[in-house]
Amino acid sequence: MSSVQEVNPRVRGIRDPVNLQNLAAQISHQIAQGEQKAFTKVIDLSSCDPHRTGMPPISFVRQVLSLCCYPELLKEDSFPLDVKQKTQKLLEACNGGSIGSYSSSTVGLPPIQRSVAEFLTRRDGGINSNPEDIILSSGSQKTLMMIRLLSREDGQDGVLAPLPFPHTLPMLLDEVGVELVPYRLTEERGWALDLEELHRALMTARRQCDPRAIYVSNPGNPTGHVQDRETIEKIIHFAASERLVLLVEEVYQDSVFGQDKKFLSYKKVLFEMGVSYSETVEMVSFHSISTATMGECGLRGGYMELINLDPAVKKFLFHAPGSPSILPQLAMEIMVNPPAPGDASYEKYTQILLRAETLSQNAGRACKLLNSLPGMSCQPAMGGVFLYPRLHLPAEIIEEMLRLSADVLYCRRLLEEEGICLGPGCENGHNDENFHIRFCVLAPPAVLEDVLTRLCSFHRHLLNRSD
Amino acid sequence: MSSVQEVNPRVRGIRDPVNLQNLAAQISHQIAQGEQKAFTKVIDLSSCDPHRTGMPPISFVRQVLSLCCYPELLKEDSFPLDVKQKTQKLLEACNGGSIGSYSSSTVGLPPIQRSVAEFLTRRDGGINSNPEDIILSSGSQKTLMMIRLLSREDGQDGVLAPLPFPHTLPMLLDEVGVELVPYRLTEERGWALDLEELHRALMTARRQCDPRAIYVSNPGNPTGHVQDRETIEKIIHFAASERLVLLVEEVYQDSVFGQDKKFLSYKKVLFEMGVSYSETVEMVSFHSISTATMGECGLRGGYMELINLDPAVKKFLFHAPGSPSILPQLAMEIMVNPPAPGDASYEKYTQILLRAETLSQNAGRACKLLNSLPGMSCQPAMGGVFLYPRLHLPAEIIEEMLRLSADVLYCRRLLEEEGICLGPGCENGHNDENFHIRFCVLAPPAVLEDVLTRLCSFHRHLLNRSD
Repeated sequence: MSSVQEVNPRVRGIRDPVNLQNLAAQISHQIAQGEQKAFTKVIDLSSCDPHRTGMPPISFVRQVLSLCCYPELLKEDSFPLDVKQKTQKLLEACNGGSIGSYSSSTVGLPPIQRSVAEFLTRRDGGINSNPEDIILSSGSQKTLMMIRLLSREDGQDGVLAPLPFPHTLPMLLDEVGVELVPYRLTEERGWALDLEELHRALMTARRQCDPRAIYVSNPGNPTGHVQDRETIEKIIHFAASERLVLLVEEVYQDSVFGQDKKFLSYKKVLFEMGVSYSETVEMVSFHSISTATMGECGLRGGYMELINLDPAVKKFLFHAPGSPSILPQLAMEIMVNPPAPGDASYEKYTQILLRAETLSQNAGRACKLLNSLPGMSCQPAMGGVFLYPRLHLPAEIIEEMLRLSADVLYCRRLLEEEGICLGPGCENGHNDENFHIRFCVLAPPAVLEDVLTRLCSFHRHLLNRSD
Repeated sequence: MSSVQEVNPRVRGIRDPVNLQNLAAQISHQIAQGEQKAFTKVIDLSSCDPHRTGMPPISFVRQVLSLCCYPELLKEDSFPLDVKQKTQKLLEACNGGSIGSYSSSTVGLPPIQRSVAEFLTRRDGGINSNPEDIILSSGSQKTLMMIRLLSREDGQDGVLAPLPFPHTLPMLLDEVGVELVPYRLTEERGWALDLEELHRALMTARRQCDPRAIYVSNPGNPTGHVQDRETIEKIIHFAASERLVLLVEEVYQDSVFGQDKKFLSYKKVLFEMGVSYSETVEMVSFHSISTATMGECGLRGGYMELINLDPAVKKFLFHAPGSPSILPQLAMEIMVNPPAPGDASYEKYTQILLRAETLSQNAGRACKLLNSLPGMSCQPAMGGVFLYPRLHLPAEIIEEMLRLSADVLYCRRLLEEEGICLGPGCENGHNDENFHIRFCVLAPPAVLEDVLTRLCSFHRHLLNRSD
């Protein structure tokens, strides 16, 4: 197997990422070595990684994890009572009372599965969630497994996905050899979904592959769109009539800030559509501890709730190899079961919930400024953590596309000249002349302000250069 | 995709585990509900999971992880200086100085890759290890990816693996649809490898699949065998001449205790065989923080060192999706770079190294006792954490095999009657009438003694029942 020709061709298909991250790391290294730049550090807002840009973690979460790592600290007086109580409860959930032991189940610690199910039942106004339908995982492995279960050996399978899509999605689908079939969202309507476009995409897909599932991101990554009940009902109806599995990413459910907008879970809508839907439509909902509020991206933890999945299919999923790591499960338990009124840490904890306010203000401020620039237009976000502005670039810059797409070139120059790393829209599926950039606005306001100033300056210079 | 027939047939092949773990969980639950049993708790020694049975974690490791979770504690006086210094060094390796940020690379934090490479260079007496050949991962995902890279779409690929094999191996190979082709180890020679058997297995394999790699476990899981230089040289020569990739599990390299035995890495032997080997043989060595000494199984962390792997193949591996979690990487750094003489925590840290002594005594004590039982024989272990005794059972018990294999039945009764969970040898590949049980001896001596007493009593009763 010493040549690439011998590599499994499905795996061979994995896209080569744009590698702005590598360039960002190189530039940071140069600065550390004392090289003079126009900036003193690189700020990366191409992904949602809030602690990296200086958003503080939730101290209750970190205190509990700290005590779980070193329970000797339970003897000290320096921690609030509810931190100690939560630690004790979580350690009891671990085998042998230690974070160093394996989960006995490959889908997570049963008490944590129960906590998640209780959270979902509360969230959806009493619609029952079954702990046995909850899979806790340390990252994308179980998701990959599930998508593999959807795919068959004979012939090419596909998944319908929004365009723009979350930038991490194509790599996941590539790895399991499943084709991504895009349905275009309507930019001028704030990236809303158009049902006719969904039908068109499905018809197109059927000429090239066997579409097995539809992927939805709500609140939208990277669009910031938040779906209303009517849209969700239509998508569920579409999935039901076309016998597609609904894969619903609901990771930013805690960050909806658009006026009169609120988060509605697909599960709640499904169950309110009556038993002909709630007992038949196959659905998987994803959540994560890498959210706007929690932001624990480095711990790598999430859950999937499986709804109406065939028991035989579920069985395979539950027997897939790999024991999930313990600490991200404990962090998930804290996320779904945080301090309550009356607890010592409650007041401090609620302060972090002001993050939604910061996020909303950041998104509004950035959107307004971006729209004030020539050659840039941006739909306002109603939720999530990203803005996804469109670039209207002069022909000279677009001509350089021969070497690199204009969005990649734009982001690369911005990184080299100003130390700001944003994401090119080609990573979200826009690879025609419809150029966008992906911009995470979850950062401390002062950091955001700095980024906006440098971005505006760069953008104006770029346009002037081409005059 | 609502029926199992539609599930990807390769995935469909995933074996149904024996599920003694589920039974153990049920029994524990019954005890918690107040049900009366002949025992007060279940002890599981079917896997290596030392913290679960009460082996204490290394306090230096846990102190540092605790401070990394909640750096506010750096201000307190209660931690030794070297704990604080290590914490600061590790936090500097994290993006944004926080364990809550993503690794920017999908193969780990570069400073941790460097620490691992330095450890390997020291371990192998100066043979250079390149940080760019180190992949840090949170579990089996990258391994799966690598095995997928080995496999091709057209035709059935295979991996040669020892019989008995590590009980987690078949699930990994099943998931990627690669066939496990066993080469039998010789029990009566302490589970040594026989080169003729390796050739026989390869010839057999070639009739049914395309063997791409050979898997080696040294020190042996579950055999406890430790390979000598001559054997390692023969296997490397075999892999070279048959153009097989060497996949070497060296997870128990820190627990070799047989008289005059020491651990020799495959890489060191490879490089001492001269450039015709050291520059050509493709090899991947695995290590983990779930070792005998460290025992941090719940954190899920490990590394792979890639030697001579085709750069094109490596590229795919480095671009595979999934960001590794941070804390297990930090624990790995501590493992390869522990307190040094003169550091405040050094003396306390060296005490944990006495664990090898405990392990050696446990293995000796258990082996002697098992060999004293009628109907049981056990090869002494030279390293690792398992004993793998053979059962010589009366015909009446074997007759019950119609329902369940005798080894599974034995383990199941032992669990139901005595609350001891051991692993049936069928999970390690012995599924003929050659019955074995897998027994991890890494436990506090008092726990081991309790287990041995109950095991002996159960075994004698079982044999008497059949008289």
